[in-house]
Amino acid sequence: MRLTKFRQLMAEQEIDGFLVTQPDNRRYLSGFTGSNGVLLITPAIQALATDSRYYEQVRQQCPDWELIEVGYDFAGNLLELLRQRELGGRRVGFETADLSVATLQAWEQGLKGRIVLVDTYGLVEHLRMIKEATEIEKIKRAVALADQTYEHIITWLKPGLSEAQVAWELEQFMRTHGASALSFEPVVASGPNAAKPHARATDRLIQAGEPITMDFGCVVDGYCSDLTRTVCLGEPADERYITVWQTVLRAQEAAEAGAKAGMTGEAVDKIARGIINEAGFEKNFGHGLGHGVGLAVHESPRFSFTYPGEVPSGVVMTVEPGIYIPGWGGVRIEDMIVMNDDKAEVLTTASKAAVLP
Amino acid sequence: MRLTKFRQLMAEQEIDGFLVTQPDNRRYLSGFTGSNGVLLITPAIQALATDSRYYEQVRQQCPDWELIEVGYDFAGNLLELLRQRELGGRRVGFETADLSVATLQAWEQGLKGRIVLVDTYGLVEHLRMIKEATEIEKIKRAVALADQTYEHIITWLKPGLSEAQVAWELEQFMRTHGASALSFEPVVASGPNAAKPHARATDRLIQAGEPITMDFGCVVDGYCSDLTRTVCLGEPADERYITVWQTVLRAQEAAEAGAKAGMTGEAVDKIARGIINEAGFEKNFGHGLGHGVGLAVHESPRFSFTYPGEVPSGVVMTVEPGIYIPGWGGVRIEDMIVMNDDKAEVLTTASKAAVLP
Repeated sequence: MRLTKFRQLMAEQEIDGFLVTQPDNRRYLSGFTGSNGVLLITPAIQALATDSRYYEQVRQQCPDWELIEVGYDFAGNLLELLRQRELGGRRVGFETADLSVATLQAWEQGLKGRIVLVDTYGLVEHLRMIKEATEIEKIKRAVALADQTYEHIITWLKPGLSEAQVAWELEQFMRTHGASALSFEPVVASGPNAAKPHARATDRLIQAGEPITMDFGCVVDGYCSDLTRTVCLGEPADERYITVWQTVLRAQEAAEAGAKAGMTGEAVDKIARGIINEAGFEKNFGHGLGHGVGLAVHESPRFSFTYPGEVPSGVVMTVEPGIYIPGWGGVRIEDMIVMNDDKAEVLTTASKAAVLP
Repeated sequence: MRLTKFRQLMAEQEIDGFLVTQPDNRRYLSGFTGSNGVLLITPAIQALATDSRYYEQVRQQCPDWELIEVGYDFAGNLLELLRQRELGGRRVGFETADLSVATLQAWEQGLKGRIVLVDTYGLVEHLRMIKEATEIEKIKRAVALADQTYEHIITWLKPGLSEAQVAWELEQFMRTHGASALSFEPVVASGPNAAKPHARATDRLIQAGEPITMDFGCVVDGYCSDLTRTVCLGEPADERYITVWQTVLRAQEAAEAGAKAGMTGEAVDKIARGIINEAGFEKNFGHGLGHGVGLAVHESPRFSFTYPGEVPSGVVMTVEPGIYIPGWGGVRIEDMIVMNDDKAEVLTTASKAAVLP
């Protein structure tokens, strides 16, 4: 089914063959999870060329794919491989954003001009945007584990722990409860660090009364989750905190309630941004509202003023407005949703509270 | 000092400027550990262009580097940036093996043909081969933590644990004893799985009497370690095990005793391979003897019959012969060494025993 759709895209691009190198795209089309391999796709062929470490794995993971036992000299064998498959003189697409210049040079040298390599941009990524039911099930399991992790961490958190200790507790919990990996290194940002949207966990000790932003997620069966909450342990030291937190929550809930399939990424972003701007924080929300999630934790499309395209049904997105005040701290609240025709479905169930007792 | 040497390399290559994008190379030259940024180096300039997430970090980590606050549109600003630095019409090198074809296209479009981009291969990697004393100190800390982890795991190991549980115990120990990350996902391969040099840890339960290969390492202060041991819990089920294990150990110790600076990678490989071949296992040692270790866990040079180049003093290498018997299992023993003029220094101190009681 995925391959049928992909072959339609190839036909639209007038491409006779296609070489897939990007790891998530390779996995999406073939099911192969190894670290090295190139898919060769034509209207009639689906083959996977890899080295001897993976021959057995390909046979298990990709029973419908022809295994090409190519070893490490893919470039050197490329002309012969493509000619055997009647691609001499034909147009063969490659993934321009993934391939290194050195690899392209090696391929071109191997092909001796007898096959035309054609630049392509985001073809498989385009297919990956809209999730199948089985993909959404996997994403739901990754979301549920992040939610469970959050409920654990809020009972475990206390002043005097370092950000790094909290990050490790998050990681340990996810890895021992079914995650094969993390979506990304957890962000644990306390006090002034919470003013930086991409802060890494440091040795700073978290204190009562200050904002603590935790942004984390995990991988289950290949699919990612992404969750953010900001909390304060005990009474907030600064009265602005509750105002900021409530504003972010209102923006977030309005965007979740208003988002539906067919809206542009810009329009969904605007729902949240309008509320934050009206509250006087227009200079404090410097990033987009959300991004697609799937095999990659950041993928197409975007909820952003730079994304005028429509977001179709079946796309899984984050909704994560934030307000950041340099020197003071910040608040971000992030859920994941599925775009539907009538109304988005909110996948995240982690509790939302500005203050933990 | 590193930069002085790099500028000499630039002069030898007749390059007026250089753009560094490969993350380890960027860190090596500038100290910057962020995930996005391009170094611009000329005979007179050392600058780092990055996005707003990292402005503060660059000021802290790279006080001697000029910060170019370029945001995300590096390609769009490139011509102006290079012209301001008097590189109009000049030759500017880039890292051909790292840069994607799409990024090169964007740069070339931005440059409008007014600056010549020049392919380069492995220039910074060449400098990185020979370690400074401070780098060797960091590597020794990473090696010591892997050694400590091994001594822990052999008291903890018992039949009935899954490979994945052992891998997680290794990871947990390293991460809670000073490692910022792992060098790579630990290999824990038991019984027939030990016949695959690159096996991943599975849910297979380890049993008494079978070979168990553990290959792991950690990152301390940016530098990697890499350690392998094969053990058997209790009396070996197959009498070949002790013979194989002793052969690998003899090969390993002979290579460590014989290696010294100035030998070719091929010659060091041959010391171990000769012993394995003589013992009748010439078909069972399919990989090279070792590889360089530093900021990357696999880097230049190699101990291999495909590496005829000399390995100079100050290079840190692994020495890791193995014997693999399909369907039965395998044995690999790996230490790390520093090449010196008289004799290699063995850094690894983890104990070596074929059988654990």
